[in-house]
Amino acid sequence: MYKIGVFDSGVGGLTVLKEIEALLPNSHIIYFADNVNSPYGDKTGDEITKLCIRIAYFLTMRNVDAIVIACNTATAAAFETLKKKFNVPIIGVIEPGVRTALKASKNGDISVIGTLATMNLNAYKKTFFALAGEKIKITQRGCKLLCPMIENGWIDKYTSYFTDEILRLYLEGISENSDTLILGCTHYPLIKDDIRKFFTKTIIDPAHETALELLHSLKNTEPKNKNIKPLVQFIVSGEINNFRKIAEKFLKRDISNIIKMDISY
Amino acid sequence: MYKIGVFDSGVGGLTVLKEIEALLPNSHIIYFADNVNSPYGDKTGDEITKLCIRIAYFLTMRNVDAIVIACNTATAAAFETLKKKFNVPIIGVIEPGVRTALKASKNGDISVIGTLATMNLNAYKKTFFALAGEKIKITQRGCKLLCPMIENGWIDKYTSYFTDEILRLYLEGISENSDTLILGCTHYPLIKDDIRKFFTKTIIDPAHETALELLHSLKNTEPKNKNIKPLVQFIVSGEINNFRKIAEKFLKRDISNIIKMDISY
Repeated sequence: MYKIGVFDSGVGGLTVLKEIEALLPNSHIIYFADNVNSPYGDKTGDEITKLCIRIAYFLTMRNVDAIVIACNTATAAAFETLKKKFNVPIIGVIEPGVRTALKASKNGDISVIGTLATMNLNAYKKTFFALAGEKIKITQRGCKLLCPMIENGWIDKYTSYFTDEILRLYLEGISENSDTLILGCTHYPLIKDDIRKFFTKTIIDPAHETALELLHSLKNTEPKNKNIKPLVQFIVSGEINNFRKIAEKFLKRDISNIIKMDISY
Repeated sequence: MYKIGVFDSGVGGLTVLKEIEALLPNSHIIYFADNVNSPYGDKTGDEITKLCIRIAYFLTMRNVDAIVIACNTATAAAFETLKKKFNVPIIGVIEPGVRTALKASKNGDISVIGTLATMNLNAYKKTFFALAGEKIKITQRGCKLLCPMIENGWIDKYTSYFTDEILRLYLEGISENSDTLILGCTHYPLIKDDIRKFFTKTIIDPAHETALELLHSLKNTEPKNKNIKPLVQFIVSGEINNFRKIAEKFLKRDISNIIKMDISY
């Protein structure tokens, strides 16, 4: 049985966790939500990388078999650094999303929405270029508010008055040319139904493909830990209540074992 | 001493009230906030006109000397109707704003922001055309969220993270050509400092000019009421607490005399 570390700036990584639970149902998963430092999207690449190294260190100290960076901004900023620094498989969310989009798009015109940091770090453009050369047209849109809105629990009827108009502003005109939209932030699948109102073509949520990549990377690996239980241990660095509320709603189950931990030592 | 009726869909008209208090300090003012029907900006012209007739009837029953429509959307929808139906001076906010903007603009390129209804009713374009012909270039932008944001009290530090980004989206590129921006909703002066971050040229708040027009219209009028006290009576159709909080902050004084009244009989 594998012990897997999954982390995000908050609730976004839950969309990836759900897919991992489906593909590796008997795993022992440590889900770390760095919500005291949310949103990552407003920070610099260096700031984000420092936070990610700290979390990866925290997870490897717990002897995980693999680490999933269930956050696009963290993947954009720190994927290469973590791969060099830590001796376990590191799975990011950007390459899986790009691969899925390349399979899905018919006209080669793909849009990506994500945080400002993810867009500024140009990770999507670089990955598309690496996997498909220059034949793909990429439109990147930084959506500063979406991640904080979701972290603050704006996923109900009352707040959809605001969410809808903000999505309209961010997505205006995007479907004129693009036939495929990548949700380039793991938070966005939580409001996929709202996004669907403003983009009616193919929407890519990289979560499933990310979980597949994790499965693949563990294929020839011997589990490091014996006698561990299948469970998901939730650890947050900031507030618990909002996290629990959104997590219970999204995962459709009660979650009682959330621990708050300050790892900034 | 004059008895003046002032109304708005909520707290926006307070920006006009403040100017009336400054110019007519000894008046008896009835301020009616129709916040149970807020936002007006999402309604049709007919719906808004019906609400306005009901309020004007309520105010004239109280023997006011004049009615100030301290709301752009209500002015755009119902100004002409109220002038025909009621036998007191009716003051709107659109013409004063247009006149001020015409004086202020040097390049004749003027932008207006307001609710969707105000923009759809084209009242600004019509008034500019009536006062200055076709020589003025008008850019109209409907800002669906600003009025509800302000009604919900998004005027503090915490919420300015959201307010700033939403303003950026609405005001993007507007200052490239326009040298003058009309705050075409009486709510917007409440977040003028935030708006200033995204439009650094001339910003027109029609409130002062509206109060001047009221003063002018009362010049040759004998007051209808004897022995009335100078005071401001606040009446809301919906919730009191949020209204009081914003009103006290904006008017910089305690307000204890807010009455809730259902006038939908």
